[in-house]
Amino acid sequence: MTNPNAAMLVIGDEILSGRTRDANMYHLAGQLNEHGIDLKEVRVVSDSPLAIIAATRALSDCYTHVFTSGGIGPTHDDITADCIAKAFGTTIGIRDDARAILQAHYHAQQLPLNDARLRMARIPNGATLIDNPISKAPGFTLRNVHVMAGVPSIFQAMVASILPSLTGGQPLISQTYRIERGEGDIAAPIGALASAFPTLSIGCYPFQKDGLFGANIVMRGTDPEILDQAMVRLKAKFPS
Amino acid sequence: MTNPNAAMLVIGDEILSGRTRDANMYHLAGQLNEHGIDLKEVRVVSDSPLAIIAATRALSDCYTHVFTSGGIGPTHDDITADCIAKAFGTTIGIRDDARAILQAHYHAQQLPLNDARLRMARIPNGATLIDNPISKAPGFTLRNVHVMAGVPSIFQAMVASILPSLTGGQPLISQTYRIERGEGDIAAPIGALASAFPTLSIGCYPFQKDGLFGANIVMRGTDPEILDQAMVRLKAKFPS
Repeated sequence: MTNPNAAMLVIGDEILSGRTRDANMYHLAGQLNEHGIDLKEVRVVSDSPLAIIAATRALSDCYTHVFTSGGIGPTHDDITADCIAKAFGTTIGIRDDARAILQAHYHAQQLPLNDARLRMARIPNGATLIDNPISKAPGFTLRNVHVMAGVPSIFQAMVASILPSLTGGQPLISQTYRIERGEGDIAAPIGALASAFPTLSIGCYPFQKDGLFGANIVMRGTDPEILDQAMVRLKAKFPS
Repeated sequence: MTNPNAAMLVIGDEILSGRTRDANMYHLAGQLNEHGIDLKEVRVVSDSPLAIIAATRALSDCYTHVFTSGGIGPTHDDITADCIAKAFGTTIGIRDDARAILQAHYHAQQLPLNDARLRMARIPNGATLIDNPISKAPGFTLRNVHVMAGVPSIFQAMVASILPSLTGGQPLISQTYRIERGEGDIAAPIGALASAFPTLSIGCYPFQKDGLFGANIVMRGTDPEILDQAMVRLKAKFPS
Protein backbone atom coordinates (compact mmCIF):
# COMPACT_ATOMS: atom_id res chain seq x y z
CA MET A 1 0.00 0.00 0.00
CA THR A 2 1.37 3.37 -0.92
CA ASN A 3 1.15 6.35 1.41
CA PRO A 4 -1.20 9.29 0.72
CA ASN A 5 0.68 12.17 -0.90
CA ALA A 6 0.60 15.92 -0.50
CA ALA A 7 1.75 19.27 -1.81
CA MET A 8 2.34 22.56 -0.05
CA LEU A 9 1.51 26.03 -1.36
CA VAL A 10 3.37 28.90 0.31
CA ILE A 11 1.78 32.27 -0.38
CA GLY A 12 4.05 35.19 0.18
CA ASP A 13 5.94 38.00 -1.48
CA GLU A 14 8.12 38.12 1.63
CA ILE A 15 9.71 34.78 0.73
CA LEU A 16 10.15 35.58 -2.96
CA SER A 17 11.71 38.97 -2.25
CA GLY A 18 14.36 37.36 -0.06
CA ARG A 19 13.20 39.25 3.02
CA THR A 20 12.12 36.18 4.99
CA ARG A 21 13.56 32.70 5.12
CA ASP A 22 10.72 30.21 4.97
CA ALA A 23 10.32 28.04 8.07
CA ASN A 24 6.92 26.46 7.45
CA MET A 25 8.04 24.20 4.61
CA TYR A 26 10.70 22.59 6.75
CA HIS A 27 8.27 22.09 9.63
CA LEU A 28 5.47 20.63 7.50
CA ALA A 29 7.85 18.30 5.64
CA GLY A 30 9.03 16.77 8.91
CA GLN A 31 5.52 16.42 10.33
CA LEU A 32 4.08 14.82 7.19
CA ASN A 33 6.99 12.43 7.00
CA GLU A 34 6.33 11.23 10.56
CA HIS A 35 2.63 10.85 9.80
CA GLY A 36 3.21 8.73 6.69
CA ILE A 37 2.07 11.31 4.15
CA ASP A 38 4.55 11.83 1.31
CA LEU A 39 5.23 15.48 0.50
CA LYS A 40 5.82 15.50 -3.26
CA GLU A 41 5.89 19.16 -4.25
CA VAL A 42 6.08 22.66 -2.81
CA ARG A 43 5.20 25.83 -4.67
CA VAL A 44 5.88 29.35 -3.49
CA VAL A 45 3.78 31.98 -5.27
CA SER A 46 3.37 35.73 -4.90
CA ASP A 47 0.42 37.57 -3.32
CA SER A 48 -1.39 37.53 -6.67
CA PRO A 49 -4.93 36.18 -7.07
CA LEU A 50 -4.23 34.60 -10.46
CA ALA A 51 -1.11 32.82 -9.17
CA ILE A 52 -2.83 31.56 -6.01
CA ILE A 53 -5.94 30.34 -7.85
CA ALA A 54 -3.98 28.56 -10.59
CA ALA A 55 -1.62 26.84 -8.15
CA THR A 56 -4.48 25.77 -5.86
CA ARG A 57 -6.36 24.14 -8.72
CA ALA A 58 -3.27 22.43 -10.15
CA LEU A 59 -2.10 21.01 -6.82
CA SER A 60 -5.60 20.03 -5.64
CA ASP A 61 -6.05 18.01 -8.84
CA CYS A 62 -2.73 16.19 -8.49
CA TYR A 63 -2.37 15.34 -4.81
CA THR A 64 -4.38 13.78 -1.98
CA HIS A 65 -3.83 16.83 0.26
CA VAL A 66 -2.73 20.43 -0.25
CA PHE A 67 -1.51 22.52 2.68
CA THR A 68 -1.30 26.29 2.28
CA SER A 69 0.57 28.80 4.41
CA GLY A 70 0.04 32.56 4.56
CA GLY A 71 -2.40 35.30 3.68
CA ILE A 72 -5.35 34.69 6.03
CA GLY A 73 -4.96 37.66 8.42
CA PRO A 74 -6.95 40.91 8.72
CA THR A 75 -4.97 43.16 6.35
CA HIS A 76 -5.48 44.24 2.74
CA ASP A 77 -2.81 41.82 1.50
CA ASP A 78 -4.54 38.79 3.05
CA ILE A 79 -6.36 37.40 0.02
CA THR A 80 -5.94 33.65 0.39
CA ALA A 81 -9.45 32.76 1.61
CA ASP A 82 -11.08 34.64 -1.27
CA CYS A 83 -8.73 33.00 -3.77
CA ILE A 84 -9.42 29.48 -2.45
CA ALA A 85 -13.17 30.13 -2.77
CA LYS A 86 -12.68 31.34 -6.35
CA ALA A 87 -10.46 28.37 -7.19
CA PHE A 88 -13.37 26.04 -6.41
CA GLY A 89 -16.15 28.30 -7.69
CA THR A 90 -17.80 28.69 -4.31
CA THR A 91 -18.98 31.75 -2.36
CA ILE A 92 -17.40 33.24 0.73
CA GLY A 93 -18.80 35.26 3.61
CA ILE A 94 -18.63 35.86 7.35
CA ARG A 95 -19.62 32.66 9.09
CA ASP A 96 -21.39 32.60 12.46
CA ASP A 97 -19.21 29.97 14.12
CA ALA A 98 -16.00 31.73 13.08
CA ARG A 99 -17.43 35.09 14.16
CA ALA A 100 -18.34 33.62 17.58
CA ILE A 101 -14.77 32.39 18.09
CA LEU A 102 -13.36 35.83 17.30
CA GLN A 103 -16.03 37.62 19.36
CA ALA A 104 -15.16 35.61 22.48
CA HIS A 105 -11.44 36.07 21.93
CA TYR A 106 -11.45 39.84 21.44
CA HIS A 107 -14.10 40.35 24.11
CA ALA A 108 -11.81 38.63 26.64
CA GLN A 109 -9.00 40.93 25.56
CA GLN A 110 -11.26 44.00 25.67
CA LEU A 111 -10.48 44.70 22.02
CA PRO A 112 -13.13 45.65 19.47
CA LEU A 113 -14.15 43.11 16.80
CA ASN A 114 -13.73 45.72 14.08
CA ASP A 115 -14.14 45.27 10.32
CA ALA A 116 -10.53 44.24 9.85
CA ARG A 117 -10.70 41.51 12.51
CA LEU A 118 -14.09 40.40 11.21
CA ARG A 119 -12.47 39.68 7.84
CA MET A 120 -10.87 36.68 9.53
CA ALA A 121 -14.36 35.14 9.93
CA ARG A 122 -14.74 35.06 6.14
CA ILE A 123 -14.81 31.34 5.31
CA PRO A 124 -15.65 29.75 1.95
CA ASN A 125 -19.01 28.00 1.78
CA GLY A 126 -18.69 24.29 2.56
CA ALA A 127 -15.40 24.53 4.44
CA THR A 128 -14.70 23.11 7.90
CA LEU A 129 -12.71 25.15 10.42
CA ILE A 130 -9.18 24.37 11.60
CA ASP A 131 -8.58 25.18 15.26
CA ASN A 132 -6.08 27.93 16.10
CA PRO A 133 -5.19 27.71 19.79
CA ILE A 134 -2.73 30.62 19.54
CA SER A 135 -4.58 33.61 18.13
CA LYS A 136 -8.03 31.99 17.61
CA ALA A 137 -8.73 33.18 14.02
CA PRO A 138 -9.36 29.79 12.39
CA GLY A 139 -7.91 28.17 9.32
CA PHE A 140 -10.17 26.01 7.19
CA THR A 141 -10.32 22.93 4.99
CA LEU A 142 -12.15 23.15 1.66
CA ARG A 143 -12.23 19.86 -0.28
CA ASN A 144 -8.65 18.58 -0.02
CA VAL A 145 -7.05 21.98 0.67
CA HIS A 146 -6.04 22.89 4.23
CA VAL A 147 -5.61 26.65 4.58
CA MET A 148 -3.37 27.86 7.40
CA ALA A 149 -1.67 31.00 8.67
CA GLY A 150 1.86 32.03 7.74
CA VAL A 151 3.15 33.08 11.18
CA PRO A 152 5.25 30.02 12.10
CA SER A 153 3.91 29.49 15.63
CA ILE A 154 0.31 29.65 14.38
CA PHE A 155 1.08 27.53 11.32
CA GLN A 156 2.59 24.85 13.55
CA ALA A 157 -0.40 24.89 15.91
CA MET A 158 -2.79 24.51 12.97
CA VAL A 159 -0.77 21.61 11.56
CA ALA A 160 -1.03 19.95 14.97
CA SER A 161 -4.81 20.54 14.89
CA ILE A 162 -5.40 19.04 11.46
CA LEU A 163 -2.84 16.26 11.11
CA PRO A 164 -4.38 13.71 13.55
CA SER A 165 -7.63 13.83 11.54
CA LEU A 166 -5.91 12.79 8.29
CA THR A 167 -5.31 9.16 7.38
CA GLY A 168 -1.60 8.53 7.34
CA GLY A 169 0.49 5.67 6.06
CA GLN A 170 3.70 4.06 7.07
CA PRO A 171 6.18 6.60 8.36
CA LEU A 172 9.26 6.82 6.23
CA ILE A 173 12.30 6.05 8.35
CA SER A 174 15.82 6.95 7.43
CA GLN A 175 19.38 6.15 8.33
CA THR A 176 22.31 8.40 7.52
CA TYR A 177 25.98 7.49 7.14
CA ARG A 178 28.72 10.05 6.73
CA ILE A 179 31.62 9.24 4.43
CA GLU A 180 34.62 11.54 4.29
CA ARG A 181 35.51 10.89 0.69
CA GLY A 182 34.64 12.75 -2.46
CA GLU A 183 31.41 11.80 -4.21
CA GLY A 184 33.36 10.76 -7.29
CA ASP A 185 35.08 7.99 -5.30
CA ILE A 186 31.92 6.55 -3.81
CA ALA A 187 29.40 7.03 -6.62
CA ALA A 188 29.78 3.61 -8.26
CA PRO A 189 29.39 1.49 -5.08
CA ILE A 190 26.48 3.65 -3.88
CA GLY A 191 24.77 3.25 -7.25
CA ALA A 192 25.22 -0.54 -6.98
CA LEU A 193 23.72 -0.46 -3.47
CA ALA A 194 20.72 1.50 -4.77
CA SER A 195 20.18 -1.16 -7.45
CA ALA A 196 20.47 -3.97 -4.88
CA PHE A 197 17.83 -2.39 -2.61
CA PRO A 198 15.10 -1.17 -4.98
CA THR A 199 12.55 -0.56 -2.18
CA LEU A 200 14.85 2.01 -0.55
CA SER A 201 15.44 5.55 -1.69
CA ILE A 202 19.18 6.14 -1.38
CA GLY A 203 20.38 9.71 -1.66
CA CYS A 204 23.91 11.05 -1.71
CA TYR A 205 24.28 14.57 -0.29
CA PRO A 206 27.75 15.98 -0.73
CA PHE A 207 29.30 18.54 1.58
CA GLN A 208 32.56 20.38 1.66
CA LYS A 209 33.85 22.00 4.77
CA ASP A 210 37.32 23.35 5.57
CA GLY A 211 38.68 21.81 2.39
CA LEU A 212 37.29 18.38 3.26
CA PHE A 213 34.98 16.77 0.71
CA GLY A 214 32.50 14.16 1.82
CA ALA A 215 28.92 13.02 1.55
CA ASN A 216 26.03 11.97 3.74
CA ILE A 217 24.38 8.83 2.43
CA VAL A 218 20.70 8.87 3.40
CA MET A 219 18.69 5.69 3.01
CA ARG A 220 14.91 5.94 3.35
CA GLY A 221 12.25 3.27 3.46
CA THR A 222 9.39 1.88 5.49
CA ASP A 223 10.92 -1.49 6.49
CA PRO A 224 13.50 -1.16 9.29
CA GLU A 225 15.01 -4.62 8.64
CA ILE A 226 15.77 -3.86 5.01
CA LEU A 227 17.26 -0.52 6.05
CA ASP A 228 19.51 -2.33 8.54
CA GLN A 229 20.65 -4.80 5.89
CA ALA A 230 21.55 -2.00 3.50
CA MET A 231 23.41 -0.11 6.25
CA VAL A 232 25.50 -3.22 7.05
CA ARG A 233 26.49 -3.44 3.38
CA LEU A 234 27.30 0.26 3.21
CA LYS A 235 29.46 0.22 6.33
CA ALA A 236 31.33 -2.88 5.12
CA LYS A 237 32.14 -1.07 1.88
CA PHE A 238 33.19 2.17 3.60
CA PRO A 239 34.45 1.43 7.13
CA SER A 240 34.64 4.58 9.23
CA MET B 1 9.61 49.39 -17.91
CA THR B 2 8.97 46.22 -15.97
CA ASN B 3 11.79 44.08 -14.66
CA PRO B 4 12.60 40.66 -16.13
CA ASN B 5 11.05 37.88 -14.06
CA ALA B 6 12.22 34.48 -12.93
CA ALA B 7 11.31 31.20 -11.29
CA MET B 8 13.39 28.75 -9.30
CA LEU B 9 13.21 24.97 -9.42
CA VAL B 10 14.66 23.16 -6.41
CA ILE B 11 15.30 19.48 -7.09
CA GLY B 12 15.59 17.38 -4.01
CA ASP B 13 14.00 14.67 -1.94
CA GLU B 14 16.11 15.89 0.98
CA ILE B 15 14.03 19.09 1.20
CA LEU B 16 10.66 17.36 0.79
CA SER B 17 11.47 14.71 3.39
CA GLY B 18 12.22 17.40 5.97
CA ARG B 19 15.83 16.29 6.33
CA THR B 20 17.36 19.50 5.02
CA ARG B 21 16.27 23.10 5.37
CA ASP B 22 16.62 24.81 2.01
CA ALA B 23 19.14 27.64 1.91
CA ASN B 24 19.43 28.24 -1.83
CA MET B 25 15.97 29.75 -2.28
CA TYR B 26 16.66 32.43 0.29
CA HIS B 27 20.05 33.24 -1.25
CA LEU B 28 18.78 33.40 -4.83
CA ALA B 29 15.77 35.52 -3.86
CA GLY B 30 18.02 38.15 -2.30
CA GLN B 31 20.50 38.16 -5.21
CA LEU B 32 17.79 38.45 -7.88
CA ASN B 33 16.10 41.24 -5.96
CA GLU B 34 19.35 43.24 -5.88
CA HIS B 35 19.88 42.62 -9.60
CA GLY B 36 16.40 43.82 -10.57
CA ILE B 37 15.00 40.43 -11.59
CA ASP B 38 11.63 39.64 -9.99
CA LEU B 39 11.41 36.13 -8.54
CA LYS B 40 7.78 35.15 -9.07
CA GLU B 41 7.60 31.45 -8.22
CA VAL B 42 9.57 28.65 -6.64
CA ARG B 43 8.85 24.95 -7.04
CA VAL B 44 10.41 22.15 -5.07
CA VAL B 45 10.06 18.73 -6.72
CA SER B 46 11.31 15.25 -5.92
CA ASP B 47 14.15 13.40 -7.64
CA SER B 48 11.73 12.09 -10.25
CA PRO B 49 12.33 12.51 -14.00
CA LEU B 50 8.65 13.15 -14.79
CA ALA B 51 8.37 15.82 -12.09
CA ILE B 52 11.60 17.56 -13.11
CA ILE B 53 10.78 17.53 -16.83
CA ALA B 54 7.21 18.80 -16.34
CA ALA B 55 8.25 21.59 -13.98
CA THR B 56 11.13 22.67 -16.24
CA ARG B 57 8.84 23.00 -19.26
CA ALA B 58 6.11 24.81 -17.35
CA LEU B 59 8.44 27.34 -15.73
CA SER B 60 10.54 27.87 -18.86
CA ASP B 61 7.36 28.76 -20.79
CA CYS B 62 6.14 31.25 -18.18
CA TYR B 63 9.21 33.17 -17.04
CA THR B 64 12.18 35.02 -18.51
CA HIS B 65 14.65 32.95 -16.49
CA VAL B 66 14.56 29.65 -14.60
CA PHE B 67 17.24 28.80 -12.04
CA THR B 68 17.57 25.20 -10.86
CA SER B 69 19.38 23.86 -7.82
CA GLY B 70 20.46 20.29 -7.18
CA GLY B 71 21.09 16.97 -8.88
CA ILE B 72 24.15 17.61 -11.07
CA GLY B 73 26.79 15.62 -9.17
CA PRO B 74 28.43 12.26 -9.97
CA THR B 75 26.04 9.86 -8.20
CA HIS B 76 23.14 7.69 -9.38
CA ASP B 77 20.56 10.16 -7.99
CA ASP B 78 21.98 13.08 -10.01
CA ILE B 79 19.58 13.13 -12.93
CA THR B 80 18.98 16.84 -13.52
CA ALA B 81 21.13 17.29 -16.63
CA ASP B 82 19.47 14.37 -18.42
CA CYS B 83 16.02 15.66 -17.45
CA ILE B 84 16.75 19.18 -18.73
CA ALA B 85 17.91 17.73 -22.05
CA LYS B 86 14.71 15.66 -22.28
CA ALA B 87 12.55 18.64 -21.35
CA PHE B 88 13.80 20.44 -24.46
CA GLY B 89 14.10 17.38 -26.72
CA THR B 90 17.84 17.68 -27.11
CA THR B 91 20.66 15.14 -26.76
CA ILE B 92 23.23 14.96 -24.00
CA GLY B 93 26.77 13.64 -23.88
CA ILE B 94 30.24 14.20 -22.47
CA ARG B 95 31.53 17.49 -23.81
CA ASP B 96 35.22 18.16 -24.49
CA ASP B 97 35.43 21.54 -22.78
CA ALA B 98 33.72 20.25 -19.63
CA ARG B 99 35.91 17.14 -19.65
CA ALA B 100 39.05 19.31 -19.96
CA ILE B 101 38.00 21.34 -16.89
CA LEU B 102 37.50 18.18 -14.84
CA GLN B 103 40.68 16.56 -16.18
CA ALA B 104 42.82 19.52 -15.08
CA HIS B 105 41.11 19.70 -11.68
CA TYR B 106 41.45 16.03 -10.77
CA HIS B 107 44.93 15.77 -12.26
CA ALA B 108 46.07 18.59 -9.95
CA GLN B 109 44.57 16.70 -7.02
CA GLN B 110 46.09 13.39 -8.16
CA LEU B 111 42.62 11.85 -8.31
CA PRO B 112 41.42 9.67 -11.18
CA LEU B 113 38.82 11.07 -13.60
CA ASN B 114 36.71 7.93 -13.24
CA ASP B 115 33.33 7.18 -14.83
CA ALA B 116 31.38 8.74 -11.95
CA ARG B 117 33.33 12.03 -12.14
CA LEU B 118 33.12 12.00 -15.93
CA ARG B 119 29.31 12.03 -15.62
CA MET B 120 29.69 15.66 -14.55
CA ALA B 121 30.95 16.49 -18.05
CA ARG B 122 27.63 15.38 -19.52
CA ILE B 123 26.12 18.59 -20.88
CA PRO B 124 23.01 18.94 -23.07
CA ASN B 125 23.67 19.83 -26.69
CA GLY B 126 23.51 23.60 -27.25
CA ALA B 127 24.13 24.59 -23.64
CA THR B 128 26.75 27.07 -22.41
CA LEU B 129 28.78 26.31 -19.28
CA ILE B 130 28.45 28.09 -15.94
CA ASP B 131 31.75 28.52 -14.12
CA ASN B 132 32.21 26.70 -10.80
CA PRO B 133 35.21 28.17 -9.00
CA ILE B 134 34.73 25.87 -5.98
CA SER B 135 34.72 22.29 -7.23
CA LYS B 136 35.10 22.95 -10.98
CA ALA B 137 32.31 20.66 -12.30
CA PRO B 138 30.35 23.23 -14.33
CA GLY B 139 26.70 24.14 -14.36
CA PHE B 140 25.10 25.08 -17.66
CA THR B 141 22.51 27.29 -19.31
CA LEU B 142 20.15 25.74 -21.87
CA ARG B 143 17.74 28.25 -23.44
CA ASN B 144 16.44 30.25 -20.46
CA VAL B 145 17.22 27.59 -17.83
CA HIS B 146 20.30 27.98 -15.62
CA VAL B 147 21.26 24.66 -14.06
CA MET B 148 23.29 24.80 -10.85
CA ALA B 149 24.50 22.59 -8.02
CA GLY B 150 22.62 22.08 -4.77
CA VAL B 151 25.52 22.36 -2.30
CA PRO B 152 24.99 25.92 -1.00
CA SER B 153 28.58 27.16 -1.37
CA ILE B 154 28.74 25.91 -4.96
CA PHE B 155 25.24 27.17 -5.76
CA GLN B 156 26.20 30.61 -4.51
CA ALA B 157 29.41 30.65 -6.55
CA MET B 158 27.49 29.66 -9.68
CA VAL B 159 24.88 32.39 -9.08
CA ALA B 160 27.76 34.86 -8.83
CA SER B 161 29.13 33.51 -12.13
CA ILE B 162 25.89 33.80 -14.09
CA LEU B 163 24.11 36.83 -12.66
CA PRO B 164 26.34 39.59 -14.09
CA SER B 165 25.68 38.24 -17.61
CA LEU B 166 21.89 38.62 -17.26
CA THR B 167 20.10 41.86 -18.03
CA GLY B 168 18.62 43.23 -14.84
CA GLY B 169 16.12 45.95 -14.11
CA GLN B 170 15.61 48.41 -11.35
CA PRO B 171 16.44 46.92 -7.97
CA LEU B 172 13.47 46.73 -5.70
CA ILE B 173 14.18 48.69 -2.56
CA SER B 174 12.27 48.31 0.66
CA GLN B 175 11.69 50.04 3.95
CA THR B 176 10.38 48.32 7.05
CA TYR B 177 8.56 49.82 10.02
CA ARG B 178 7.75 47.85 13.16
CA ILE B 179 4.44 48.54 14.90
CA GLU B 180 3.75 46.97 18.27
CA ARG B 181 0.00 46.74 17.86
CA GLY B 182 -2.18 43.89 16.67
CA GLU B 183 -2.83 43.62 12.95
CA GLY B 184 -6.55 44.11 13.55
CA ASP B 185 -5.90 47.61 14.89
CA ILE B 186 -3.73 48.75 12.02
CA ALA B 187 -5.29 46.97 9.06
CA ALA B 188 -7.63 49.77 7.93
CA PRO B 189 -5.03 52.60 7.89
CA ILE B 190 -2.47 50.32 6.20
CA GLY B 191 -5.02 49.39 3.57
CA ALA B 192 -5.71 53.09 2.95
CA LEU B 193 -1.97 53.72 2.62
CA ALA B 194 -1.70 50.90 0.06
CA SER B 195 -4.51 52.51 -1.97
CA ALA B 196 -2.82 55.93 -1.77
CA PHE B 197 0.49 54.56 -3.07
CA PRO B 198 -0.47 52.17 -5.88
CA THR B 199 3.10 51.90 -7.23
CA LEU B 200 4.31 50.45 -3.94
CA SER B 201 3.79 46.92 -2.70
CA ILE B 202 2.88 47.22 0.97
CA GLY B 203 2.95 44.05 3.02
CA CYS B 204 1.93 43.49 6.62
CA TYR B 205 3.82 40.70 8.38
CA PRO B 206 2.48 39.95 11.84
CA PHE B 207 4.58 38.55 14.65
CA GLN B 208 3.89 37.51 18.18
CA LYS B 209 6.63 37.13 20.72
CA ASP B 210 6.40 36.83 24.49
CA GLY B 211 2.72 37.65 24.39
CA LEU B 212 3.29 40.83 22.38
CA PHE B 213 1.44 41.11 19.07
CA GLY B 214 2.78 43.37 16.36
CA ALA B 215 3.55 43.63 12.68
CA ASN B 216 6.35 44.65 10.38
CA ILE B 217 5.10 46.87 7.59
CA VAL B 218 7.28 46.36 4.53
CA MET B 219 6.98 48.82 1.65
CA ARG B 220 8.66 47.91 -1.61
CA GLY B 221 9.14 49.88 -4.78
CA THR B 222 11.72 51.17 -7.21
CA ASP B 223 11.42 54.93 -6.52
CA PRO B 224 13.15 55.96 -3.26
CA GLU B 225 11.30 59.31 -3.08
CA ILE B 226 7.87 57.70 -3.18
CA LEU B 227 9.00 55.20 -0.57
CA ASP B 228 10.12 58.07 1.66
CA GLN B 229 6.78 59.85 1.25
CA ALA B 230 4.87 56.72 2.20
CA MET B 231 7.10 56.14 5.22
CA VAL B 232 6.47 59.71 6.47
CA ARG B 233 2.72 59.05 6.25
CA LEU B 234 3.04 55.70 8.01
CA LYS B 235 5.11 57.11 10.87
CA ALA B 236 2.72 60.02 11.34
CA LYS B 237 -0.15 57.57 11.66
CA PHE B 238 1.71 55.24 14.06
CA PRO B 239 4.33 57.24 16.00
CA SER B 240 6.83 54.94 17.70
